[in-house]
Formats: sequence, C-alpha cells, structure tokens
Amino acid sequence: MKTDFLLEHRTIREFTDKKLTKEEIDKLMDIANMTATSNGMQNYSIIEVTDENLKEKLSKVGSQEYMRRSTHLFIFIVDLFRNYKIAEELGVSNKDMIDMDKFFQGFTDASIACQNVVCAAEAMGLGCNYFGNIHNDLKKVIEILKLPKYTLPVVGLGIGYPNQKPQIKPRIPTENKVFKNEYHIYDKYTETLSDYDKKMTEYYDLRDKNRRVDSFFKQVEKKQGSVVKNRDKIFDVIKDQGFIINK
Amino acid sequence: MKTDFLLEHRTIREFTDKKLTKEEIDKLMDIANMTATSNGMQNYSIIEVTDENLKEKLSKVGSQEYMRRSTHLFIFIVDLFRNYKIAEELGVSNKDMIDMDKFFQGFTDASIACQNVVCAAEAMGLGCNYFGNIHNDLKKVIEILKLPKYTLPVVGLGIGYPNQKPQIKPRIPTENKVFKNEYHIYDKYTETLSDYDKKMTEYYDLRDKNRRVDSFFKQVEKKQGSVVKNRDKIFDVIKDQGFIINK
Repeated sequence: MKTDFLLEHRTIREFTDKKLTKEEIDKLMDIANMTATSNGMQNYSIIEVTDENLKEKLSKVGSQEYMRRSTHLFIFIVDLFRNYKIAEELGVSNKDMIDMDKFFQGFTDASIACQNVVCAAEAMGLGCNYFGNIHNDLKKVIEILKLPKYTLPVVGLGIGYPNQKPQIKPRIPTENKVFKNEYHIYDKYTETLSDYDKKMTEYYDLRDKNRRVDSFFKQVEKKQGSVVKNRDKIFDVIKDQGFIINK
Repeated sequence: MKTDFLLEHRTIREFTDKKLTKEEIDKLMDIANMTATSNGMQNYSIIEVTDENLKEKLSKVGSQEYMRRSTHLFIFIVDLFRNYKIAEELGVSNKDMIDMDKFFQGFTDASIACQNVVCAAEAMGLGCNYFGNIHNDLKKVIEILKLPKYTLPVVGLGIGYPNQKPQIKPRIPTENKVFKNEYHIYDKYTETLSDYDKKMTEYYDLRDKNRRVDSFFKQVEKKQGSVVKNRDKIFDVIKDQGFIINK
C-alpha cells in the first residue's frame, strides 16, 4: 500500500460545506478504537462536538476562530474514570489506578488514537487540524464538555474536506532529529540548523508576502517564550481532576 | 485509498529475519518527521537503537525479552533541549521554554509521530510493537541512550516483518467510548460493559487454552492495581531532567 500521502501532511484550516456521512464518521471512530493502547486498558475517550454553541465556546478557549468552522470536531481525553468505576464496582479500586503512571498511559493512548484518525482521514482525502490550544484553559474545556474527575482533555481534532491547499511546512532534517544509539549534542545549533532556518524564511515569505521576515529561530523565540496565562499550570488542573501526583 | 488495514491492528511480538532496507527506514523517519507538531516546534527526537548490547539493556528495563528481538527499534523522546539551545545561542532562553506546557507539547509530538510511523509501517505490511514498559525505569533509559536534560523517553517502537498473526484483541465498543457533546456517565459500568467482558474472556480462552479464565474486568484489577516500583514517580524524573514543574 502506498504511504506517500503521509509525506504530504499539512494543517487544513478551511473546509468545504461537504460533511462526512455517518458511516464515514463511524469508520474513523472504529479506527481510533483499534489503535494500540497501554496494557490494553483503553484509558481514553473521545467527545464528538456537534453542537454549534459548544464549538463556538471551545474555539474561544483557543482563540482560534476557525476551530468553530471545522466540519467535524473531536476532543480526545485521558479517561481513567471508566476503569476506576469498574474497579470501584468490583470493590478493588485503589490509588494506583489514578496515579501519574496511569495518567501518562492515558495521555499517550489519547494522542496516538488521535493520530490514527488523522492517518485514516488523510488517506480518505480529508484534511485535519490539531487543536492544542484547548490547553489555554483546560478548566473551561472540562466544564464545557462536562468531564468527570480522572479525565483530562489532551487535544482537539478538526476534520473535513479541504478548501485550501497550503504549502507543506519544512521540517528540521531527520538527520538532526533521528539519532543512532545515543543522543547527539551539536556544538552550535544555530549553525547546524542554519539551512533549515533559511528554508523556513522562504516558506514564510511565500505564505504571506506582507508578513515581516520570519524564520524558525525567530519562531522559537516567539512561540517558546510567550506563555498564555496559566497554560503552564497544567498540574493544578491534573490535581483538581483527582489524579494523584505523589502517593 | 483503503483504510481497512487500520482496523486490523494487532501487536506483533515475533518477527522474521528479514530487515528493512535503508531506504525503507529513511522513509519511515521522513514520515515521522512530517507529522503535525505543536506550534511547529518539533519538540521531540527519535533514537534508533541498532546496537545489540543496548537493545539487550533496554529490554531488561521493561522485562520484555522479545523487545531485544525487534528487527528495528526506535525510542521516541520529548526533546526541548534542541530549541532551548537555539534560544540560548540567541541569548533569549527562559524558563517558559522548559515548562510543563512545552513538556506536554513535546510528549504529544513524540506520541503522534510514533503512531504515524505505525500507520505507515502497517500500510507497508510490517508489524509493530509499542514498548511502554521503558517507563519501568526512565532513569536507566536516559542513561543508556545518553539523553541530555530537557528530554524524556516517551515510548519505544519495535518494527519488522511479522512472524505471527495473533487474533485481534476486542475493544470496548465505540458507543461506550465516543460521546456526543458531553461525557456520559453510566449507572453501572460492569453491567454496561458485561458483553465486552465476555468477548474478552473468549479472546483469552482462544489465545491460551491453558491460561486460567481471564476477562477485561480481571485485567483492570490486575494491571491497574499493580505498580512496578517507582513507575508512578515519573515526576521526580521529569524534575531531574531539568523541566520546570512550578515556576
């Protein structure tokens, strides 16, 4: 089977009016459901957001107006609640079930299930958009989707038929990202990655002629340095959701 | 393009002797590299483990002897080190760059890049095995792969040509995992999921006739309840790696 489409990934922010059929949505969710999960425990769930009012509210959390216009929108969440309830009903629940080990298992489960859906969707000619910006206010997302304790939103995913074909964004070369047997530390990163930085400048030039000169290094400075208020306080939310950080 | 192969996912633990060509490995890494990443920051890296001695050591961490026999083995890691060094060289590094927000961005980046490789590999007829058990001793994995500060191992991935065709493991039905607009809490989980529990019992019966009766509910009790020593202390390792938990 051809895999070249996976080299063509780009974020799609604008979609046509065409909706997926119920069968197509069901298939994408079945594919999510067949993703590998840690210890077979399936510590994640998915909320499909179809209510326009909720989509509006969620897009405000991330300050991404186009999120609202995603034809289909899904929020992937860590879910230790389900198995904790099973254990509770069996009279065997304990703190290990909601600790940081299980939390990270669920976080991984949710993430990889989401990417499995992206692969399937892109293979079907659909476009996708990851919404990490729900992390701007996790408390609000929890409230909007009525999430119980022992759950946490991980990432949002917009899906639809592309109404744009953006350029593919260059990546740091694999040789600087994939190492053999041990991590490789470079003497000077700005030298090692200077060609990549130039490529990114060209990419931004083409994308928006009016934009002032941008580059990867400038993005590192801008995007890494600025923090949306409370976005780094994810731990407080994890704690508030009942997960146990230190036993 | 057909996506049915994504419904056929199963963990492959035993591989034939046939190796992937360099071109095939390169393609898989290029596909990893084209995965979406948070803010375009690419806060992850990949270590390809080819050294038999290191494979042996890593398989001991997870107590999974078959990990050593993976034809090809990759460890996906959170990597904030690269961009922090860029910022340092530019004279603009700061604590925001290594905080929990960026950490979780990198954790998601690493996870979804790994699943993208799984999709590509399975499309090529290869088999995959996730190794979450590297979390049994992250400190040891960090030492083995010589990982610098601001990095953390997320998950291992074994790839090769399948030498087995295990049964597909049943999943909790999507209707109990995918909710519309808000999270749904069931009155009694052991009732709602009793059919699934029966399916899992049949699955275990078929998989191993000598195994005592097993079921999903029993697995929840067993796997959720028992914690490998220190596996829940992931935060101490995160802190030791220099990430900032509370600013």
